[in-house]
Amino acid sequence: MNGAESLIRSLIASGVDTCFTNPGTSEMHFVAALDHVPGMRSVLALFEGVATGAADGYYRMTGNPACTLLHLGPGLANGLANLHNAKKAGSGIVNIVGEHAESHLALDAPLKSDIQGLARPMSHWVHSATSAAEVGRDGAAAVTAARTAPGQIATLILPSDTAWSEGGPVVTAEPPAPRATVPSEAVVAAARALSGPRTLLLLGGQALTAANLDHAGRIAAKTGCALLSEWSNARLERGAGRVSIGRIPYPIDQALQVLEPFDRIVLVGARPPIGFFAYPGKPARLTRPDAEIIDLADWAADLDAVLDGLEQEAGAAGTTPLGLAEAAELPVPTGALTPETIGAALGATIPENAIVIDEAVTTGRSFFPVTAGAPPHSWINNRGGSIGYSLPVAIGCALACPDRKVLALSGDGSAMYTPQALWTMAREGLDVTVLIFANRSYQILRGELTNVGVQNPGPKALDMLSLDRPAIDWVGLAKSLGLEAYRVDEAGALTKAIETGLALDGPVLIEVVM
Amino acid sequence: MNGAESLIRSLIASGVDTCFTNPGTSEMHFVAALDHVPGMRSVLALFEGVATGAADGYYRMTGNPACTLLHLGPGLANGLANLHNAKKAGSGIVNIVGEHAESHLALDAPLKSDIQGLARPMSHWVHSATSAAEVGRDGAAAVTAARTAPGQIATLILPSDTAWSEGGPVVTAEPPAPRATVPSEAVVAAARALSGPRTLLLLGGQALTAANLDHAGRIAAKTGCALLSEWSNARLERGAGRVSIGRIPYPIDQALQVLEPFDRIVLVGARPPIGFFAYPGKPARLTRPDAEIIDLADWAADLDAVLDGLEQEAGAAGTTPLGLAEAAELPVPTGALTPETIGAALGATIPENAIVIDEAVTTGRSFFPVTAGAPPHSWINNRGGSIGYSLPVAIGCALACPDRKVLALSGDGSAMYTPQALWTMAREGLDVTVLIFANRSYQILRGELTNVGVQNPGPKALDMLSLDRPAIDWVGLAKSLGLEAYRVDEAGALTKAIETGLALDGPVLIEVVM
Repeated sequence: MNGAESLIRSLIASGVDTCFTNPGTSEMHFVAALDHVPGMRSVLALFEGVATGAADGYYRMTGNPACTLLHLGPGLANGLANLHNAKKAGSGIVNIVGEHAESHLALDAPLKSDIQGLARPMSHWVHSATSAAEVGRDGAAAVTAARTAPGQIATLILPSDTAWSEGGPVVTAEPPAPRATVPSEAVVAAARALSGPRTLLLLGGQALTAANLDHAGRIAAKTGCALLSEWSNARLERGAGRVSIGRIPYPIDQALQVLEPFDRIVLVGARPPIGFFAYPGKPARLTRPDAEIIDLADWAADLDAVLDGLEQEAGAAGTTPLGLAEAAELPVPTGALTPETIGAALGATIPENAIVIDEAVTTGRSFFPVTAGAPPHSWINNRGGSIGYSLPVAIGCALACPDRKVLALSGDGSAMYTPQALWTMAREGLDVTVLIFANRSYQILRGELTNVGVQNPGPKALDMLSLDRPAIDWVGLAKSLGLEAYRVDEAGALTKAIETGLALDGPVLIEVVM
Repeated sequence: MNGAESLIRSLIASGVDTCFTNPGTSEMHFVAALDHVPGMRSVLALFEGVATGAADGYYRMTGNPACTLLHLGPGLANGLANLHNAKKAGSGIVNIVGEHAESHLALDAPLKSDIQGLARPMSHWVHSATSAAEVGRDGAAAVTAARTAPGQIATLILPSDTAWSEGGPVVTAEPPAPRATVPSEAVVAAARALSGPRTLLLLGGQALTAANLDHAGRIAAKTGCALLSEWSNARLERGAGRVSIGRIPYPIDQALQVLEPFDRIVLVGARPPIGFFAYPGKPARLTRPDAEIIDLADWAADLDAVLDGLEQEAGAAGTTPLGLAEAAELPVPTGALTPETIGAALGATIPENAIVIDEAVTTGRSFFPVTAGAPPHSWINNRGGSIGYSLPVAIGCALACPDRKVLALSGDGSAMYTPQALWTMAREGLDVTVLIFANRSYQILRGELTNVGVQNPGPKALDMLSLDRPAIDWVGLAKSLGLEAYRVDEAGALTKAIETGLALDGPVLIEVVM
């Protein structure tokens, strides 16, 4: 058994059984070992950002890391943007990054680079294997790191000689440590602080499971406090019968307005609200300067226990949660495609147990309220802000949950960072319906020009935000990569196309011409 | 004048007048300033690896850096693979990477990351601007660094407040320092060492200009030494009437065989030959262990003077260069598409003054000899080994040399890393003919499996190297991004399609079905 095989066996023994790969020469022994070891599913991507984004989606739905297989420094580099998003979402991932054999590292080979240096900014844990005998142990340590709450990025660098030389023992990762508990006095004090509509319970991370939102809804019913989540959530459970929770808006002025009423904010798995960017003359912190922030529990803490405790301390046990969404039978919209009619089409079609991955950027800002009464579903946001995440994440979600329908909502600008994801969807026959909102511009930046104080942008500036020359034919692009695809320019047709896409088992792309 | 404007004016004053952009909110003041400052051409890319690769191509043809505009850490990360290639090719590039305003950096905003840490592995020079008043000076310093021989990667991180605050003076970069000279005693000794067919003059970098190859050809004629270049060259001048020079083969066994005869190797702008990767049981150094290596001049030295000096010292002045390629009127090939017939089609069609960018990987290994007698042209290789470089590099070449025809030769696997480049070609109406060799596999890795000692790879391993499920429709893909496109499966038709592509002024893609 060579090092590569001992590594794969250790990963499987540690519960990691899915690998998103884009290999090269230095990874060939790992690839060859896939045939000698049963139990590792290997999914090929044509670009590394697809592999890392898929691993992110996989973790969000399973709570268990997948691994990636990447080719030296440049291969890792291509995966970094979606590792950034995964890191900010608290997703656990084990990256296996091939490296030259030790004897080759002293030479300045073309593909030599500082892999550790590249890995560090987007990883919590980085290690270079030094011996084939230890590779199994290294793999198990990587899994242990990746499983550290809320989930971490672990990058194991694998010199090719540690893969091809005789390996050592198969090692199993430590069981995940229990999440940190929050002192009961803090919970008692926070429960007292939540009183009336000028207090806010701001939720994030594991606080957004259906059960925890039920706790929060009961706390709100009893104390009168408001509930909100952050703008971007790794995963939020919602839909009919669940407690419906709003999100702090992305646009800076709206965010300031929404948070202005609150004298006191209790954070459970959320961070003190700040602007996505700095804007001249506008505050970075979105809460009123005199507002009291009570940071009760960070995202790595045992939030189930915290919310249960808050409910008990608030005397809210047994009350009916506030904000339970009622099932809404929405009429099928007709007419021009606008953010509102698109939202209505989604509200009318989201099926029970769907996974919705939201990278709709400007078009999607109004989707949330109108879909609150759809059948129960999961809603996934980009917490890292690097666009090009939704199509790769959809792959990981679909592989993790083969019995659930996946809806990926993407702006056209965003989808062009990782269009290769479509090919992997076709190859794996994944049950994903992709909506591309083709407004043919970096529309968000038109608003941001104003927000950062640019008056009357000139033609060269606007040209850098325009994607209409040429207009991308998304139907042709999707078909070229093996997908079914449709183009719609009317709301009734969109509704029908979504239904058609969802009815099929394989991937479908719908170009929504704005 | 704000900081952004002072930066753009300083870049232009320093001779940098082309910017490959993929901006976001933190870069909006730079984008807005493009309308206030005449003289900066701004070219939009939909993925950052296209922008950095284009800047690489631009430098290879002009010897002058372009700049890129990238969005924070993840935007830079997406550009790193092609910065790696540019760095290994000795290309000078100025990266402008937006960053949060200083006041925002203390907060953990979604897009915050360690930009310096990400930049360092692929940059020679990294600096974070700290004051709007100094940004012009920082920009000039970046250009000075990028112009340091042979060409360096300079990354300037631009916090948004240094862009929007009142700027300082416009500053001009230092003129490039003269290249290092090589002591004449070393040249004299090397000239004496070159004698007979068991000595090799191995050339790289600036030694591969037409004039320097003439020197080399005369030295070979006089001394009887052999001439070779490295496998990958940043740019090689060749074709009818120029000294034809071979390249050390990529496959390890062939490379060892080609270098085996040589007792003595004189390096001029080249490095001691090593394998691209380490292979078990095979040497890393490709020269015979007892061969003498004379490292006369590295790639940053004044190679024009070195080769002129070698010619003088060898008494070769006035002799007719050995290996002058004769113009070859190649018959138009017919029949099945093989590496040989494709090479013949190229040999029959490469027009005078063309720029050929070679990322044909396995298919292209035989292209070189058969095209030696084509009209004079430039040949560009990937020196960094990170695939996905040819389409972006073609953009930079075409913009740098609007009067020259550009031929980009890419494997299908390689082209899928940066297909977004096609859109920028269409948008800019670039005169590029792209050939995609659709063998529907990572063909090179099938050979490498054997080279690294994997016997009888199993179905899972082979599946990770197969791109045929689904087969990518390259014609559909190219058309979806605004290009003319044709599919050919026969050598005569290929020849005709290349001629058609070259006759048009805009971009054309030809899918060559293998």
